[in-house]
Amino acid sequence: MSVLIVGSTALDSIKTPKAENPRLLGGSASHAAVAASFFAPVKLVGVVGEDFPQRYVQLYKRHKVDLEGLQVAAGKTFHWSGEYEVNMNSRRTLATELGVFETFTPKLPVSYQASPFVLLANIAPSLQSHVLKQMRRPEFVVADTMDLWLNIALPDLLQLLKSVDGFVLNDSEARQLTKEDNLISALKKIHKLGPKYVIIKKGEHGAILSSRDTGLFISPAYPLARVVDPTGAGDSFVGGMMGYLSTAKGPIETNLRRAMIYGSVVASFCCEGFGLTFTTRITRRAIDARFKELARLTRF
Amino acid sequence: MSVLIVGSTALDSIKTPKAENPRLLGGSASHAAVAASFFAPVKLVGVVGEDFPQRYVQLYKRHKVDLEGLQVAAGKTFHWSGEYEVNMNSRRTLATELGVFETFTPKLPVSYQASPFVLLANIAPSLQSHVLKQMRRPEFVVADTMDLWLNIALPDLLQLLKSVDGFVLNDSEARQLTKEDNLISALKKIHKLGPKYVIIKKGEHGAILSSRDTGLFISPAYPLARVVDPTGAGDSFVGGMMGYLSTAKGPIETNLRRAMIYGSVVASFCCEGFGLTFTTRITRRAIDARFKELARLTRF
Repeated sequence: MSVLIVGSTALDSIKTPKAENPRLLGGSASHAAVAASFFAPVKLVGVVGEDFPQRYVQLYKRHKVDLEGLQVAAGKTFHWSGEYEVNMNSRRTLATELGVFETFTPKLPVSYQASPFVLLANIAPSLQSHVLKQMRRPEFVVADTMDLWLNIALPDLLQLLKSVDGFVLNDSEARQLTKEDNLISALKKIHKLGPKYVIIKKGEHGAILSSRDTGLFISPAYPLARVVDPTGAGDSFVGGMMGYLSTAKGPIETNLRRAMIYGSVVASFCCEGFGLTFTTRITRRAIDARFKELARLTRF
Repeated sequence: MSVLIVGSTALDSIKTPKAENPRLLGGSASHAAVAASFFAPVKLVGVVGEDFPQRYVQLYKRHKVDLEGLQVAAGKTFHWSGEYEVNMNSRRTLATELGVFETFTPKLPVSYQASPFVLLANIAPSLQSHVLKQMRRPEFVVADTMDLWLNIALPDLLQLLKSVDGFVLNDSEARQLTKEDNLISALKKIHKLGPKYVIIKKGEHGAILSSRDTGLFISPAYPLARVVDPTGAGDSFVGGMMGYLSTAKGPIETNLRRAMIYGSVVASFCCEGFGLTFTTRITRRAIDARFKELARLTRF
């Protein structure tokens, strides 16, 4: 089954202590779409400007991403630039130019409206809601977010959380949202906001799933000796997860654990190159090999 | 088989945002000995002063800890006092009074010298070496440490590392020792210092084992919604691990993963009360139940 993904489609200029890469293909939807594409057909919803390089359109197409929902608007593509410190965990935004995102109103093509799996990747929660309202009874909806929306659009986010099945956020966002330092307590509080499934991402420490019915799952991260650029790892995680989920047979409850492991694997590949450069070079076979390796690395 | 444990035997005064507890039984050897006692007979090596409360001697005895190697010296018991911040991860030492530890020279009773399993719990590395030299060909030796020794006794520690099988340290110590931010890279560097097995503890994020022969194992921490006092959790982890290892049949390589899970379980109980108050109340049955739960929480 196909996965509909809405989120940001951007150009990222990324600086690390070792290198600098201007105007890479980036954005939550781009990372999530490529990650999901290894498992399932993807329908992308987003907006780019007239300056959006044709080679990035070709990149989407190589991953068989349906672009009917990608608007090309007058103006410039959303541009983010940021810099990582040596430890690759703390990053600093140098500039954010919203460009065509400033006036973006996602409009779903008719062919998108029946997609059973919906990933509301990181973007303003009002836009996430706007997309969700255009859907016809999706089977499973997951939303991701970022600290910015907790700061400037919390009421919108809380409204959205009432109508999603799953919610994904990172550890510091979970603490900020719940005012709870302990992540296990934070998970409990987030369930009360609506979602049946809550996933807290912890970067190199993996992720925790809390399911209202079946409790916790502790998901490992794939161990990497070298992180080149972690930008988009979280988006790759949810993208890979939703891609796998949409193709797995049986109840979601049962498949979600394996889906998170697949998400972790794609996220690990993402960290091994700048932007999407490494992710676009991998194969399903490489993903499956790393999945099996993670099973070996955690068995006791 | 029995486990010999050398380390600090102390009185801990612990302050958290919610409570204050003076003169609890503490020290790396006390925590490790009680943790190991659920699995195997323990022989303790340490020193206390004349002020050491009789009730703590009784506590050791209830856990069937062999006290022949516990010296009682003229002077005061080692006293540590510290304070935790709200998040329970950062702590501040308020005072350290070495007392009888200042002149401590561990002397092993003859009955201790053939112990097959040796845990050199956190204490000055010169004392760890001094104990090890008195042993007759132990089967498996593990050393723990703390940042203090990296700062003031690094040559002693490096010397010790040449003669232990396993080395346990936490993530920030691993970074400090190797000048390597990435923990997977740090593990590789630490192997070069001697130990065949290196374990990096990551608190609430679990631990990573690196074995020179068989590679990595990612060990989860037991998820706790409430941490009362994390003091001694790391010592409980190595103590539980060594206790289980000493009784498990088959090669160490195979048993070490399960041993780490047992260690994590005892560490989780340790965090649920001040000092050793919670750990001393648990049973092997409760430990086994939580071990099984961790297996369920990580299966995919």
